[in-house]
Amino acid sequence: MSVEVTRMPSPSAEPGDDIVAIEEPLEICAAWGGSDGPREKNISVTMRTPGDDFDLAVGFLFTEGLIRAAEDLESVRHWGSPNRVRVALAAHAAIDTSKLERHFYTTSSCGICGKTSIEALRVISDPLPRRPPVDGEVVHRLPAILRDAQPAFRATGSVHGAAIFDRAGALLRAREDIGRHNAVDKVIGSFVREAATPLHDAILAVSSRASFEIVQKAIMAGLPTVASVGGPSSLAIDLAREFGVTLLGFVRDGRFNVYSGEVHS
Amino acid sequence: MSVEVTRMPSPSAEPGDDIVAIEEPLEICAAWGGSDGPREKNISVTMRTPGDDFDLAVGFLFTEGLIRAAEDLESVRHWGSPNRVRVALAAHAAIDTSKLERHFYTTSSCGICGKTSIEALRVISDPLPRRPPVDGEVVHRLPAILRDAQPAFRATGSVHGAAIFDRAGALLRAREDIGRHNAVDKVIGSFVREAATPLHDAILAVSSRASFEIVQKAIMAGLPTVASVGGPSSLAIDLAREFGVTLLGFVRDGRFNVYSGEVHS
Repeated sequence: MSVEVTRMPSPSAEPGDDIVAIEEPLEICAAWGGSDGPREKNISVTMRTPGDDFDLAVGFLFTEGLIRAAEDLESVRHWGSPNRVRVALAAHAAIDTSKLERHFYTTSSCGICGKTSIEALRVISDPLPRRPPVDGEVVHRLPAILRDAQPAFRATGSVHGAAIFDRAGALLRAREDIGRHNAVDKVIGSFVREAATPLHDAILAVSSRASFEIVQKAIMAGLPTVASVGGPSSLAIDLAREFGVTLLGFVRDGRFNVYSGEVHS
Repeated sequence: MSVEVTRMPSPSAEPGDDIVAIEEPLEICAAWGGSDGPREKNISVTMRTPGDDFDLAVGFLFTEGLIRAAEDLESVRHWGSPNRVRVALAAHAAIDTSKLERHFYTTSSCGICGKTSIEALRVISDPLPRRPPVDGEVVHRLPAILRDAQPAFRATGSVHGAAIFDRAGALLRAREDIGRHNAVDKVIGSFVREAATPLHDAILAVSSRASFEIVQKAIMAGLPTVASVGGPSSLAIDLAREFGVTLLGFVRDGRFNVYSGEVHS
């Protein structure tokens, strides 16, 4: 979006135009056939950059463990507003409303300490299958390719990117969003909608830091390797080690740190 | 927190140690005397960096509009866990549970479009009083002072900072957190606890981008100027213009952009 802006320092302090990242709320609602008849519920509202809304809605439901696969979906469409997506579930599927306490950046259902959060995740996801270490040379190449796949970042300087690569470092798909979790949900959701998960032979690269929730989303999608341009959090490292995720941080300027797992050098 | 890490490229690929930002969930619960007797409720769980937990809890309740002032508080303490804070309200105060749909990064109670979000905020907050423009020279100095007040960022490279300055550019207080909203809640909460809000003659500086929620929190604290090292979102700009907040973005390397309001050059 283009907005009027005054750039400082400026000899004249005359206003010009600046491209800014668009942020709008997206409401995600789900409809399914409950045992007492049809149910419909608002699941979440997230501040996101419009675009790839269906991927975002499906990715969010999937990485939160509310749907398990593309076959759980009947339809995904905008509903009454460009800022509302309605996900209708297939006849056999239903939303476990006890899981709905959990929201972006909140982990109400996961208890109080990080340990408990990890235990809770173990109930819904298995450790990842072992894969040979990825190649260090491949890792070094990811950030530049991700950046090239981020037109909104180039225009605004302030959106996050998430991309899925194959083990040889070929870009499979990239998505952008003002929220780093949304960028990850968008790119994962695009594969979920194509019934192309789990992504056991792929790499998730993010332009952001690696939080607990980024690693959690990777685990839900079966991604065995996460490479972040920024640093990881303590809980992200704990989680990666517990589930066998290779976690690489500060992947930039020809170097990176291996926080969990190993890399072929 | 120190963790073992392998740095790449490395002649030996020998593991070393690395300081990472700590991320743990904090549960915020509130207790008050309801009309039907005592009530106690879990308000939110946020992934945060431990430290200044009382400021964070109070700041969150305040910027969400759930408490209005220090006099609404009876006590704030850890409760059964270092990751749970219990805020007991004074006899005259109560939590409006209808507001609890709103969480970090979610705006369920605020409706579907950004316009509606801004309308909803207008109900609970007035436009800020007019103040003379801040000085451009002051703005240029803020990021370096903020960075100097961020020991955790220096150690880890991955936590956000938020600081309150006076109009002359003197640092009043800074806080850090792995979450940018938490850093803002911590620094605002510290003033709320001292009954030192509204901060009509102060400047909020953040090391992050400026989202809708950052500007919203500033408005709740009466802060007329927000300076962000990163860029603002479209909705942050809309909100700042609506409420008379001076919003400055990309404040770094001796320059910045004025997205709302004006600056004395």
